Amino acid sequence: MTTEQLISHIRVIPDFPIKGIMFQDVTTLFKDAECLQELSDRLYELYKDKGITKVVGIESRGFVLGAILATRLGAGFVPARKPGKLPADKVVEVYSKEYGTDSVEIHTGAISENDVVLVHDDLLATGGSIGAAYRLVSKFNPSKVYMNCIIDLTDCPRREVFPKDVEFTSIIAIKEHE
Amino acid sequence: MTTEQLISHIRVIPDFPIKGIMFQDVTTLFKDAECLQELSDRLYELYKDKGITKVVGIESRGFVLGAILATRLGAGFVPARKPGKLPADKVVEVYSKEYGTDSVEIHTGAISENDVVLVHDDLLATGGSIGAAYRLVSKFNPSKVYMNCIIDLTDCPRREVFPKDVEFTSIIAIKEHE
Repeated sequence: MTTEQLISHIRVIPDFPIKGIMFQDVTTLFKDAECLQELSDRLYELYKDKGITKVVGIESRGFVLGAILATRLGAGFVPARKPGKLPADKVVEVYSKEYGTDSVEIHTGAISENDVVLVHDDLLATGGSIGAAYRLVSKFNPSKVYMNCIIDLTDCPRREVFPKDVEFTSIIAIKEHE
Repeated sequence: MTTEQLISHIRVIPDFPIKGIMFQDVTTLFKDAECLQELSDRLYELYKDKGITKVVGIESRGFVLGAILATRLGAGFVPARKPGKLPADKVVEVYSKEYGTDSVEIHTGAISENDVVLVHDDLLATGGSIGAAYRLVSKFNPSKVYMNCIIDLTDCPRREVFPKDVEFTSIIAIKEHE
């Protein structure tokens, strides 16, 4: 399956969740068995030789490919969740959004200093949540952190999301308004 | 790995999210690579010969094994989400909770009449959300619906969750206060 075929399965929804956003709906990729397999295969090829021991998926669309990749790599899966969802002691990272702040949380003890971590989300837009997830995972001081998303919206206004020497990959790089 | 070993990896948290609930935390299962693989293998064995074409995962803990199982079965993955999360046209099922109501949603067109569907969640307690997910999926009139969860809390007070002739499996059956 080509990248263009994958892109053709993304449903673009104007003005969701707020006016001016061209929302990239990945549920139409996930529901298609061939697309889901293709995404799984491409991610596996990218990370099969990296010694990944934990995959962190960002709530909640990042749970889908994050969990799939964790089992294919023989790694554990760790959810990075929104405030108030995790039941035990946790480490928190706060980040600023267009209006106000949000935060992301991971359970204390979910990542060790021996872990090689891949952080996965469905989408990189302005990078607020994935940047916060990078800083949050870094607090656990793992031996290495890789970053990945399915879709990279390359023309989205973006601050520095994570340091330049962090290895980042995406499956599909598109302009937001395509 | 034995069922007892799996159970030993579940973290039980008293009085979360409200007093009187012994919360079964599955993140300690998911973060352990061997446990995650064992759960994946057991689910795959249960459903490999059923002709499943879509796996529905209930937000958000049901996304983890639901997505893993979908790729192993060569099926598509469909999220059943909380209100306001899905961006396109959707089908909605409302259900009553201890206090007030909640609802679960699936995108219109995510399931067809030719589909054989497995609905997966992490936990069956009172059965409110998984029962609603059953009724929601049934509105799409698929050719067959199977139901599954990781943990079945067998002594939890439960109304009729789905009709008796619906095939339901769990990986781990435990009493809530073990």
